[in-house]
Amino acid sequence: MNDRILSENNKVIKRIFNLDTNAYMEGTLPVVTKEMIGLATSMVLKCDDCVYYHLQKCYELGVTREQVFEVFSIANLVGGTIIIPHLRKAVEFWDALEAENQQ
Amino acid sequence: MNDRILSENNKVIKRIFNLDTNAYMEGTLPVVTKEMIGLATSMVLKCDDCVYYHLQKCYELGVTREQVFEVFSIANLVGGTIIIPHLRKAVEFWDALEAENQQ
Amino acid sequence: MNDRILSENNKVIKRIFNLDTNAYMEGTLPVVTKEMIGLATSMVLKCDDCVYYHLQKCYELGVTREQVFEVFSIANLVGGTIIIPHLRKAVEFWDALEAENQQ
Amino acid sequence: MNDRILSENNKVIKRIFNLDTNAYMEGTLPVVTKEMIGLATSMVLKCDDCVYYHLQKCYELGVTREQVFEVFSIANLVGGTIIIPHLRKAVEFWDALEAENQQ
Amino acid sequence: MNDRILSENNKVIKRIFNLDTNAYMEGTLPVVTKEMIGLATSMVLKCDDCVYYHLQKCYELGVTREQVFEVFSIANLVGGTIIIPHLRKAVEFWDALEAENQQ
Amino acid sequence: MNDRILSENNKVIKRIFNLDTNAYMEGTLPVVTKEMIGLATSMVLKCDDCVYYHLQKCYELGVTREQVFEVFSIANLVGGTIIIPHLRKAVEFWDALEAENQQ
Repeated sequence: MNDRILSENNKVIKRIFNLDTNAYMEGTLPVVTKEMIGLATSMVLKCDDCVYYHLQKCYELGVTREQVFEVFSIANLVGGTIIIPHLRKAVEFWDALEAENQQ
Repeated sequence: MNDRILSENNKVIKRIFNLDTNAYMEGTLPVVTKEMIGLATSMVLKCDDCVYYHLQKCYELGVTREQVFEVFSIANLVGGTIIIPHLRKAVEFWDALEAENQQ
Repeated sequence: MNDRILSENNKVIKRIFNLDTNAYMEGTLPVVTKEMIGLATSMVLKCDDCVYYHLQKCYELGVTREQVFEVFSIANLVGGTIIIPHLRKAVEFWDALEAENQQ
Repeated sequence: MNDRILSENNKVIKRIFNLDTNAYMEGTLPVVTKEMIGLATSMVLKCDDCVYYHLQKCYELGVTREQVFEVFSIANLVGGTIIIPHLRKAVEFWDALEAENQQ
Repeated sequence: MNDRILSENNKVIKRIFNLDTNAYMEGTLPVVTKEMIGLATSMVLKCDDCVYYHLQKCYELGVTREQVFEVFSIANLVGGTIIIPHLRKAVEFWDALEAENQQ
Repeated sequence: MNDRILSENNKVIKRIFNLDTNAYMEGTLPVVTKEMIGLATSMVLKCDDCVYYHLQKCYELGVTREQVFEVFSIANLVGGTIIIPHLRKAVEFWDALEAENQQ
């Protein structure tokens, strides 16, 4: 679907997608910090797909389960209990990542 | 899933879950008023799972269909027409509660 | 400013303003319950002016300080810590209402 | 479900549904402009069902694919990357509308 | 302040500001339609400064008072009564634009 | 005002304020990472007072201007252009922190 959107030749959308890659690249902050910020902001804005994307990245970068729960806890506190359904889905996704890689 | 989250030993998340029980307990306001407030705030913040939870509680506490629609009407007016899809799901859930209990 | 907006002859806006009066009128739920629901939904959606309006109504209807804090506590829990600046303003407004009326 | 909600005899909800029809009728702005505004506001507020509704209307009114992408691009820029999952669903819906009508 | 932000040499922010200009340029949709979409999305997301910016542009492009109220009415209906304080500020701003230009 | 709120003896609010301190304490993630997460989530949720609080903390912890702009850039991309007015205020606040400390 991303390919389809990008093939559309809408310059603004193309650049937003491009920026989405740029913003999380190594800078004066390490990639892992940026991914955790991406994860937390996605969670408080209740974007499950964005949460999954950043969880995948965090997992690949070696973020531990305990660390990811600390990110969740800040998002949950800042965003309130309406975040809980998104927290549940995020934990489920993280569990699946761990299960996949333990085999 | 709640058990799994709570077993994680993240103190902040545990306490938020704990507060979620405390906040709706009998106080100077009756439980039923608090549940209706929980319902309305969940609806304007578009959290379907939270809406279902509070609808269940309202039903158990004897809130009538007409009363629950008055709560919906305030949420719909305050939150605008983007609340309508959540209103539809809420009515469906309430209908199911009534159907279950009429048998 | 409301008069100016209503004099504009835009039917949709006029009716929304009119509904805003209707929705909080005595129904199967008492006015005071509706005002507390209006207060809580306004707070989680971070609308200070709406919060002030419903606080005024609650005060006139005899809602106690302890009760209004119970409404605040649900809004704060549901909406998270980003609600705190709006909670501060609300408490300030309520304090002013009490001070005015103690003279 | 709409019929069921409207049969409920809740005056506030009925009028909101009624206004929802009124607001998009020909005025000093043409229907097509209003539908594009309805589409963009629904998208930034992440209401997929509302997006589908306005996409259907836009399609029937002859809005082109290129134009609809320009509406998407503004919504995406104003609302940020958390809009992307809703953009994906919107493009999928639009593709289906085009496919249906090319047969 | 914009100059200061842009002088910072943060590529992502610079490009977002740049896109903000691009997105509202003449395309297959006329500038005036895009500005009204920018206005409505800003209003439902409760960004007063953004609303003022697009109102200014709309005024310069010859949008009439009646048309701008039709945009407001859709935003108010979609976003609910919590939009009203932002509607008030928007009307005040528009009135000032008209007053300035009648002298 | 915080003292006044806490003196109210509302257990739920007191605990939320207490958690707000706990959540940002050293854990498996360093304090500085947590503060940057607090900053970014506050920014996308458009809470200026929360942004100022976390900026102050970040400054005290030695976060550099370039790093804070990287946090801003993610928030701006994730939350869209409606974040820009909050970005402006944040830069102004950061500038004041730097100016104060250069004397």
